[in-house]
Amino acid sequence: MMFKILDCTLRDGGYYTDWDFNRDLVDLYLHTISSLPIDIVEIGYRSPSKESYFGEYFYLPINTIKRAREKLNSNQEIAVMINSKDINSTEELEKLLTDCKGIVDMVRFASAPNSINHSVELALKAKSLGFAVALNIMYLSKLTIEDLHFINSIDGIVELDYLYLVDSYGACYPTDIAEKFSVLSSSNTNIKYGFHGHDNMELAFGNTIEAINSGAIIVDSTITGMGRGAGNLKTELISIYKSNKYGQELLYDNLVELVDKFNGLKEEYKWGASLPYIISGMGGLPQNEVMNLMSKQRYSTLSIIESIKKAPQENGNLYSNYQELDKNNIKGEFQSAIIVGGGKNLLDHTDSIVEFAKMTNSLIINSTIKNCETFIDYNLKQLVCLPGDERSKLHTIDVASSNLLGYILTEKTLNSSTVDFDTDKVFKISILSDLKDSSNEIDEDAPLAMAITTAYKLGIKIIYLAGFDGYRGITLKESYLLKENQLIINSYNDKNNEAQLKSLTPTLYNIERMSIYDLLGNKLTKTVLI
Amino acid sequence: MMFKILDCTLRDGGYYTDWDFNRDLVDLYLHTISSLPIDIVEIGYRSPSKESYFGEYFYLPINTIKRAREKLNSNQEIAVMINSKDINSTEELEKLLTDCKGIVDMVRFASAPNSINHSVELALKAKSLGFAVALNIMYLSKLTIEDLHFINSIDGIVELDYLYLVDSYGACYPTDIAEKFSVLSSSNTNIKYGFHGHDNMELAFGNTIEAINSGAIIVDSTITGMGRGAGNLKTELISIYKSNKYGQELLYDNLVELVDKFNGLKEEYKWGASLPYIISGMGGLPQNEVMNLMSKQRYSTLSIIESIKKAPQENGNLYSNYQELDKNNIKGEFQSAIIVGGGKNLLDHTDSIVEFAKMTNSLIINSTIKNCETFIDYNLKQLVCLPGDERSKLHTIDVASSNLLGYILTEKTLNSSTVDFDTDKVFKISILSDLKDSSNEIDEDAPLAMAITTAYKLGIKIIYLAGFDGYRGITLKESYLLKENQLIINSYNDKNNEAQLKSLTPTLYNIERMSIYDLLGNKLTKTVLI
Repeated sequence: MMFKILDCTLRDGGYYTDWDFNRDLVDLYLHTISSLPIDIVEIGYRSPSKESYFGEYFYLPINTIKRAREKLNSNQEIAVMINSKDINSTEELEKLLTDCKGIVDMVRFASAPNSINHSVELALKAKSLGFAVALNIMYLSKLTIEDLHFINSIDGIVELDYLYLVDSYGACYPTDIAEKFSVLSSSNTNIKYGFHGHDNMELAFGNTIEAINSGAIIVDSTITGMGRGAGNLKTELISIYKSNKYGQELLYDNLVELVDKFNGLKEEYKWGASLPYIISGMGGLPQNEVMNLMSKQRYSTLSIIESIKKAPQENGNLYSNYQELDKNNIKGEFQSAIIVGGGKNLLDHTDSIVEFAKMTNSLIINSTIKNCETFIDYNLKQLVCLPGDERSKLHTIDVASSNLLGYILTEKTLNSSTVDFDTDKVFKISILSDLKDSSNEIDEDAPLAMAITTAYKLGIKIIYLAGFDGYRGITLKESYLLKENQLIINSYNDKNNEAQLKSLTPTLYNIERMSIYDLLGNKLTKTVLI
Repeated sequence: MMFKILDCTLRDGGYYTDWDFNRDLVDLYLHTISSLPIDIVEIGYRSPSKESYFGEYFYLPINTIKRAREKLNSNQEIAVMINSKDINSTEELEKLLTDCKGIVDMVRFASAPNSINHSVELALKAKSLGFAVALNIMYLSKLTIEDLHFINSIDGIVELDYLYLVDSYGACYPTDIAEKFSVLSSSNTNIKYGFHGHDNMELAFGNTIEAINSGAIIVDSTITGMGRGAGNLKTELISIYKSNKYGQELLYDNLVELVDKFNGLKEEYKWGASLPYIISGMGGLPQNEVMNLMSKQRYSTLSIIESIKKAPQENGNLYSNYQELDKNNIKGEFQSAIIVGGGKNLLDHTDSIVEFAKMTNSLIINSTIKNCETFIDYNLKQLVCLPGDERSKLHTIDVASSNLLGYILTEKTLNSSTVDFDTDKVFKISILSDLKDSSNEIDEDAPLAMAITTAYKLGIKIIYLAGFDGYRGITLKESYLLKENQLIINSYNDKNNEAQLKSLTPTLYNIERMSIYDLLGNKLTKTVLI
C-alpha cells in the first residue's frame, strides 16, 4: 500500500512565527504542494481564544481555510489540529468545529500520553460531526512497550481513523521505531498508524522509513523541516523518495523556489539539528527550552548546552549560595535610579546623564553589562544585572571597581562554573509578579524586568530609563526584545503607581518621555525630584 | 565491543578547499579532536606528484604529519589515505611511505570495486612496511550481494586490518546497509568492518547506526559533515552518541567553537543535503558533477536538477539540432573582436569601447549575457556566448535585435526546455583544445574559453578583452573564475601566436595591457590595427 504524506508546514512551522505567514509565501506554498505527492495538508491549529498573541494559522478563520481549499488539488485533504488540553468539553469542541463542516476533512488531536481518554472522547465527538479523526500521541521516546499495549486497549481507540506516534523530543532511534510500531501493528484492528518525527539527531528520515517499513501508512513532514525545535522530516525529501519509489514524476520548478524561501526563514529562526538540539535529542530532553533559548539569541550555544546538561537541582544548589537582594545589603541611600539599557543613543547623552545622576543622587542600574563601563569611569554607584549568560562578559569591565555595588542574578540565570567573581557582591532576586503578563511571556531573566525589580527591592521612588531606544528596521532578536520590553513597561505602569517609569533619552517605546535637557536646563533647578 | 570513530575532516573536507586549511583552524581542530572520543584521525592524502594545484593535506609533508602527531592525544592513531589508482607499483608505494614509518599508524587505500586486486596488493605491501591497513571500497550502492561475497573471497583480503564499505553516492538506505554488512560479517574471518557514509539523503547517521548494529566496528565522520558532495556523518553527532552510549563525559567548550568555524566554511562551500544532492542520492547518481556545478555557483539549483535528471543522450539529441559555428554562418567580415567580460569597470569605458569598435570594425563577442544590452544600444554587431544556464537570462535582452548575429552554445551547456529562442541563430562550438590545460581544469563552457574559440572559428586576427577586471577581495565564485580565466589566458597565449590577447580596460590578470585611451588618442590614428 502506498504510504501517505501529511504536510504540516504552517501548523508546525508556526511555532517560530506565532502562526503568521506572509500571504505570498502561503500562496506559493499551496500552489507547490498542490503538485507534490502530498495527500493531506494540515494548515494550522483551530483554537479557542487565548490571551497572548497568536496569528492566522493558530485560529484559522474559516476564510483562511477556504482560501487553502481553493488552491489545493481537489484530491488533497485538509486537516486542522486541536490541542486536546485546550478543550474542556465536547460542547466546546462542537462549537469550535461547526463552521469547518464540509471544508475541513480531518481533525487531528494532539495529546499527552496521560490524557488520552479525554482526547479520544473529543476525537469521537469530531468523528460524529463528520470529520475523519486522528490522535497524535506525543513523547514517543518516553513510552514503554507496556504503555503502547495499554494505548491499544483504550476504549474507543479502534474507532479513530489514524493513531500517530509523535517523537516530540527527536530522541528515538530506528530500532525504537521498529519495535514500537510492531507492537501497534500486531493489534489486528482497522486503525491506521502514523509517525511524526523530529530531526534533533538527523534521524527524521531514517526513523520515518523505519516507521513505514514497520506498518505506519501515513507520515508527517514540513517544507525544509520547519517546525518546533529542531524541526521535522523535510517534505522535499519524503516527496522525492515517494515519487522515486512509485515511479511518479515530480515537478521541481516551484519546489526549488519554495525551498529557497523557507531556507531564508531558517536562517532567521535557526531550526534544524545543531549542537544544543543534538544534545537534547540524545538526552531525551524536551526541546522547548532549547528552542526558547535559541530563538531569543540571548544565549550562546555553549551556555545553552550547559543549561540543558545540568539537572535543575544543580542550578538550585548553586543559586542557594547567593543572598537575597535587600535594601540593607547595598551601601548608600538612593531616592531615584536610572536603569540603563543597551541602546546606542545613550552614548550621545552620556555627559548629561552623568550630570543628572550626580545632581539627583541616582543609583545606576545596568540592565545588562553593555553600557556599564561608561558610568564606572564617571564615579557613579552602580548595580549590574546579569541576565542570560552576561556573566561570561564580566571580563570586559573593571569588576574590582568600588563603584560597582553588586551583581544581580535570578534563578533562571544559567550557572556557568567557568565564570569566577566576587561572591560577596552577588545578590539574587525573583522578578516582581507585577511585571509578568497573564500569558507568561516575560522571561524570568528579562533584563528590564530584573532592573525594575532591583529598584523596587531597594525602595527606590523614581525610576528613569536611559538607553531604551526601541528598534526600527528590526531583526528577530530585536523584535523579541521590543515586544518584551513594552510588555514589561505596560505591566509595571499598569499596576504600580508609586514609581512610574519615565524615559530620559529618545525612545520608540510607549512610555512617558521627558527630555534630560529640559530637566537639566529648567526643571531640575526648580525641584530636585520630578 | 565499543565502536571506533575515524575522523577524516581534513582529508574529505579537502575536496572543497584544494586541501589547504588555515593553520589556526587546523590547530583548533586537532586540539578539539584530542579531547573527543575519536580513535583515529585521518589528516589527509599522501599522493605522488600531480600537475594541477593541490594543497598541504593532499601531499602531507612529513612535518605536517609530525605537527598533528604532537597535538593529538597519545592514544589517538594517525591515518593517511592513498588513492590506489594513483599508485602504479608497490615500489612507488614504498617510496611514498618511507618517511611516514613510525609516525603514521594506518594507511587507508581508496579503491573502486573493479580494482580491488591492485589495492589489496598495495595494502599488503604497506602492511609489510609496518602500517595497519584499511581498504575502502567505493560505490556501495552499486554493489550486489554477489559482489560482496566475491570481495570476501579475494586473495589476501583477510590479512587487511579493516575493510570499509563506502556509500560514495549517499544512495543507500538503512535496509541496504543491514543486508550488506550481514553478508560481510557472516564470513567468519578476523577482518574488521568499517562504514563511510554520505549525507545526500540525510541518512548518514541512520545508516551508520545500522552499520554498527550489523557488525561494523569502525565508522568515519567529519566536523559538520564537511566532505565531498553533500558530505559525511557529523563528528559532533557520532561523538555525542558514543559518549552517551558508553557514559563518557564530553567536553563541549572547544567543540562549539570548532563547529561554528566549520559552519562558516559550510556557508561558503555549501556541502550538506540540498535538493540537487537529495536527487542525486535518491537516483544513485555520482555527486561529483553536482558538487562541481554547486561549488562554481554558475548554475541555478533548478538547472543543476535538470542536468542530473537528464540522461546524457537527451542532451546529445537536443544539441545535435544546432549547426556548428562557421565563418560562413555569420554575416559580415571582422578583422578584430572585442571579448566582453562581466567586469564592473567596463561601464566606465563604454563610450570609448564603442568608438574603438566602430573605428576598427570589431565584432563584439559577449562572453556572458551580462553586458550585452550595453552594446546593442550602440548598434554594434554582436555574438553572445551562453555558458552555464545563461539562456535563462535571455529575457533580459532584446533578442530580436538585428545586431545580435547569434548565440553560442557548447555541448556542456545545459539543455533547459523552458527556454525558447530563435534556433536559426544558435551555433555550437567545442572549446579549442589549446585552451585546456593538462589537468583539465577548464570547463567545457568556461565563458572566456567559449568567446576565444568563437573568435578563432571566425578567423579573427586580433582579440581584445574588455571588462575582464580580475577580482580583489574575492568570494569563492570569484576566486574560481579568477583562476579559470588566468589559466585560459595563459594556455591560449602560450600556444597560439597569431592573435594574442590584449586587455583594453584595467585588469588584474596577467595579460598584455593596452590603454584604450592611448589607442584612441594616438595609435589608432596612425595605424588601423595594432
